Order: sequence, then C-alpha cells, then structure tokens
Amino acid sequence: MPTLQVKTASADYPVFVGRNLFPAIARAKRLRQCGKVFVVTSPEIWALWGKKFLAAFPKDQQPTVLFLPAGERFKRLSQIERLASELAAAGADRSSVLIAFGGGIIGDLAGFLAAIYMRGIDYLQVPTTLLAQVDSSAGGKTGANLASGKNLIGSFHHPRAVFADIDVLQTLPDRELRAGLYESVKAGIIRDAALFRFMEKNSEKILSRDPAALERVITASIRMKAQVVGIDERDSGLRMVLNYGHTLGHAIESATNYRALLHGEAIAWGMLAALRIALARKTVGRDQAERIEQTLLAYGPLPPFRSTPAKLLTAAGRDKKNSAGTRRFILPQGIGNAVVAEDVTDQELHAAVEWLLTHARRGFSNP
Amino acid sequence: MPTLQVKTASADYPVFVGRNLFPAIARAKRLRQCGKVFVVTSPEIWALWGKKFLAAFPKDQQPTVLFLPAGERFKRLSQIERLASELAAAGADRSSVLIAFGGGIIGDLAGFLAAIYMRGIDYLQVPTTLLAQVDSSAGGKTGANLASGKNLIGSFHHPRAVFADIDVLQTLPDRELRAGLYESVKAGIIRDAALFRFMEKNSEKILSRDPAALERVITASIRMKAQVVGIDERDSGLRMVLNYGHTLGHAIESATNYRALLHGEAIAWGMLAALRIALARKTVGRDQAERIEQTLLAYGPLPPFRSTPAKLLTAAGRDKKNSAGTRRFILPQGIGNAVVAEDVTDQELHAAVEWLLTHARRGFSNP
Repeated sequence: MPTLQVKTASADYPVFVGRNLFPAIARAKRLRQCGKVFVVTSPEIWALWGKKFLAAFPKDQQPTVLFLPAGERFKRLSQIERLASELAAAGADRSSVLIAFGGGIIGDLAGFLAAIYMRGIDYLQVPTTLLAQVDSSAGGKTGANLASGKNLIGSFHHPRAVFADIDVLQTLPDRELRAGLYESVKAGIIRDAALFRFMEKNSEKILSRDPAALERVITASIRMKAQVVGIDERDSGLRMVLNYGHTLGHAIESATNYRALLHGEAIAWGMLAALRIALARKTVGRDQAERIEQTLLAYGPLPPFRSTPAKLLTAAGRDKKNSAGTRRFILPQGIGNAVVAEDVTDQELHAAVEWLLTHARRGFSNP
Repeated sequence: MPTLQVKTASADYPVFVGRNLFPAIARAKRLRQCGKVFVVTSPEIWALWGKKFLAAFPKDQQPTVLFLPAGERFKRLSQIERLASELAAAGADRSSVLIAFGGGIIGDLAGFLAAIYMRGIDYLQVPTTLLAQVDSSAGGKTGANLASGKNLIGSFHHPRAVFADIDVLQTLPDRELRAGLYESVKAGIIRDAALFRFMEKNSEKILSRDPAALERVITASIRMKAQVVGIDERDSGLRMVLNYGHTLGHAIESATNYRALLHGEAIAWGMLAALRIALARKTVGRDQAERIEQTLLAYGPLPPFRSTPAKLLTAAGRDKKNSAGTRRFILPQGIGNAVVAEDVTDQELHAAVEWLLTHARRGFSNP
C-alpha cells in the first residue's frame, strides 16, 4: 500500500515510505511489463547496498547498473551524454525503465536522462539520502548544471513511483542527515505547523534515527510537497514557496563553487537570511522567528563558509527563479505559511547578505 | 491570418505559410510581452537573410543572435551546453523566447535547447529549408544526436508558432529543394492522395520554384502532419506512419556516417526499399508502386551511396522506433494510406537491403 499519492495535471504516482522496501521496488507495477531495467547509482551507494538491491530482483530481470561518480561537478550534460551512450550500447529502448538509486544528484540527473533518452522513458526514484527523500524525489523536477549555474538545464518529468526506504538512511553520514532535516523543518515552516512542532520537540529522537520518528518526518515532508506540486505542477505560483531559502542559498552554493556546504546547509543559511527580511517586514513575529531559528539549529550548527558581498549579490541576481529582472524571495508568514515577495529592495537584500557574512566565518549554532 | 492550426492534447499553435513573413514573425503574439529574444541560426543562413530578418524587428526588440555551425555533426549535447551557457551569460530567463531560424538541424537543436533551458522556455520555428518546413518544424519533436545514433536524445516541445516563408526557399540549393520534395511526396503517399496527384502532375512547375505551386505543396504537407500529430501527439500510434521510409533511411544515414546523403534523400531510398516489401505483400498494387516510384524520381535521381548488408542490418536494428525488439516498418497501402507492420521477417528485410545495395552504387533514377 502506498503511503501517499502524488497527483498533478500530468501525472499520478505512488510514494512508498517505509522499511525494507527493495522487494517492493522489484515488484513495482511499472516493472511488470517492460523492456530492460537499468539502475543509475553512485559507486559509494552501490558498495553499501548493491548486493541487497540486486537480490530483490528475480534472476530473469536483473537490472544493468550504470554509475555516476558522486559530486555536484558530475551533474553535467557530458555525463548525460556518456550515460545515454551506455544505454544505447546496452540496447535500451522506449520500453526500458531506469531506476535512480542514490542522492539528489543521482535522482536529478538520472531523471533528466530518462526525460530525454529517446524523448522520454519511464523511471523510478529510490532516494538514498534524507534530502533526496524529502525534497527532490517527488515532484518531477530533473536537471543538470551549467558551469554558470545550478539546474539551468532540465525537464519536468515525473517518476512512475517513489520509494523512500528508512533503512537506507542508517548508512547516511550525520552531516547529510542533518542537511536533509533542515529541508523538513522548511516544509514545516512554509506549510505544516504540526510537522514544525513535531520537529521542534523531537530533535533528539529524530537525530538518533529512530525509525518511527524519521518515517513521520519524511511522510509529512513529502505529503506537503505533493500537495503543493498537485496544485502548481509547473512552478508558476504556489510551488515557488518550496524555494524558501533558495534565493540566497543558491547564491552561497554558487559563490563557494558548491564545495563548502551541502545543499541543505546552504538552504538553511538562506532560510535564516530570508527570515531576517521577514522579521524586518514583520510578516513574522520575533517569537516565531526565534522558534524557527532554534528549531533549524537544533539539527546541528550551520558550517562556516567564505564569500564576499559582491560574489553573493552577483550570484543572487542570476537565480533562475527571477523572471524578467524581478528579484524573488520567499518569506515565512508566521509558522506554517509563507508568501512570495517580488518587491525585496536592494537595501533589504544587502542587509540579508551582510547578516550572512557576519556569521559565515564562524558558522552558526544555538548558543 | 494563420494558414492552419496545430491542435494536440498539449498544444495549440498557428502555422503561417506564405511570402515575405519576416514582419509577421516580428509581430508574433508570443513576442508582444516577453523578455529577451534570441535567434539561433547558422552563419550561412544569416549571411543570406540576417539583415532583412533584423530589419523586421523594432529597434527596442532586436534579437540576440546565437550561431550553430551547419552539419549533422554539430547536432550534439556539447553544442547545447555551449548555447545554453551563451543564453545564461546574455541574461536569458524563463520569459525569454528563442527563434529557430534555419534548416531541420537548427530547428531540432534550438527546439531542444528551448525544451531544457531552465526546464523549458518558449520558441518559434522559422524553417528555411523545404524539408524543415514540411517535415520537422511542426509537431514538437526536438532532439540531438549521440555518437551511436540520430535523435537518441530529445524532448517533445511544441513551438508557439511556425512561419514557413516561401521567399526564403529561393536561396535553397537545388539538391536540398529536391530532398524536401521527397518528404512531400511521402505525405501524399501515406495520407493525402490529392497532394500525391498534384505532385505527380506538376513536378516541373514545383521544381522551378513557382511560389503558388510551392505554397500548395507546403500547406498540404504541413496540414497532413498537423492532422496526424493532432490525433497522436506522442508517437504511439498513427504518428508512426510519418516514419515511412525511416527504418532503412535512418540505417543508411547511420551506415554512411550522415555524409553521403541528405536526410530527405536517405528517406527516399528507404521509401523505395519499403515499397518492395509492400509490393511483395501486395498491400500496394504494381501500378500504384510504379506511380509512387516514378513520382519520387520525378523530383530528381537518388544519389549513390556505399554500404554493406552487415552495416545496414546492424543500423536498422538500432532504430529507436523499435520497441522491445520489434522491427517496425511503415508500408504504403495503395496511395494515400499506409500501415504499421511489426511482423516484417528477416527474409523481407534482407531482400529490401539487397535491393538497396543493388542500386546504391550507381544511384537511382527514372529510366
């Protein structure tokens, strides 16, 4: 039984959240009548889980494994070209199915590969990091980076099913777990006050990877995202609120060449900076702002990074969420709600960047 | 007033066929409220038509010009990467519009660029070869090649309008004109007996580029395609008949490294070879087969090429129209109708390849 269903104008597919899901993947409806099955994964994930993964598949439907090295710098069209050539050489056709088995980079790039191989083949998402489970595996956004910016190339292409396996998280490094949890806190802040309160009160349990607590956080996070995507599939209205923290978060990632911070960490920095703007505008009260900050920091200190005002401002101007010169910020409105602001002034932007750089050198943590 | 309208499940856009269309392009509805406008074109086309093209645009909306070198070998992801980087550097965002101004390779690649830049921006098709006008500019198929095969990467992404300008054809080399006319004969064979008869009787007028005759041929060809695409947008049923000549045509192109023949010429060879299979199966009568062959050859002799049975058979097996090992041929059924055959035997395939290679060395023409 699926945990929930993503329903949009163009797609309708199940999300499974739970333990020991590999057998369910192998039994997935889409794999019952299809051509060859391919897995796109990283060598690291495969070393940990490959044997168990393959064991779940019947002998006459063993998937062919394609590897993508770990790291944002491999999320490029040159890798798409290589993987597509490997697919063609292995006889992949329109009836073939890909399984994206890895973190967000694997999911985005393998999803994009599925979107454009022979003008689109089906794929399943099996996210192996918390961030990918709660943030990128459902919703259909796929993409690759250009040298000049992240995800500047991509497609909307929904998976046929998503499998978020709690067990796989047991091998996730602590820092990556925390980076994913920031995104779940974000889900609470922008749209799910109950999730926020749960994460506010249960940080120890969650950080100790209690399966029931993780399952609750993951399910609520994906449900929030599925609701938003169901209403606004193509990022033209409501879906923009999912980008809370992204305007400056992306700028930080770009200004630090995607090396200093994990994606979730950069977004958490971006959330705190945008929170300053919301606080100054009084769309959020001082108490609420403090709860937001403390809950984010309960999941670990934000690591330091180095940049300059000029670098961050330039990078913020190139964000693809901007349309025809508009500067777009998502601002929390209390807890459990957020608004899109297109009228953030230079002064507000500079103040937010200044706040970031004041704290960036030493990192940021609860006192 | 548009000449006709393409209506599919996901798109609805006008096609203009006529003379002196540049001012109509500049006035296109989609360009009224948009961000920056970009033209993707080839240096050759731009040298001939660039000045006149730009002159049609108001001073405050002069498009930025991006170049793609001519030739199938540039229809690759590496060029997409370069063009996307140029778009990003020039400040293209989601409100920007591309204009594909060139032959089929420009149209396919620029359309694909529009499909995946920032997960999709709008574009207009301004095809400058007859082949692109009648074959590829309407219908939403975009793509790039891999080393191992043509159009193995791509998207369905419809343009917001198509402008087929007859005047631009005046600078088209004779050989390219003929290659496009083979595709119009194809349109007649598979679905429009009246177009076939018109082309059967008026080859001299058409080859002399009489504007009224060309306009009739182009309009009928695009109308046929628009009808088919309107019924089957995604290539799962009826649309396959458009691929008459493609199973072996693609194989010839691939086996000759896309160098010996123009696309339309390879498809014409493929049509004649598939005609042999249809004739042997008696889905087409001897008289009809003769009329089809003579009408195709009325538009010029098919140039020679060199290949081997092994090369052609291997390349035919890799055609992306094959699904899970099926071998798919489109066979004419009389004139004005065609069927999809998935049961072509090895023997029939070998006979068709043998016929091709018997005539390939000297080329093929009306006696």
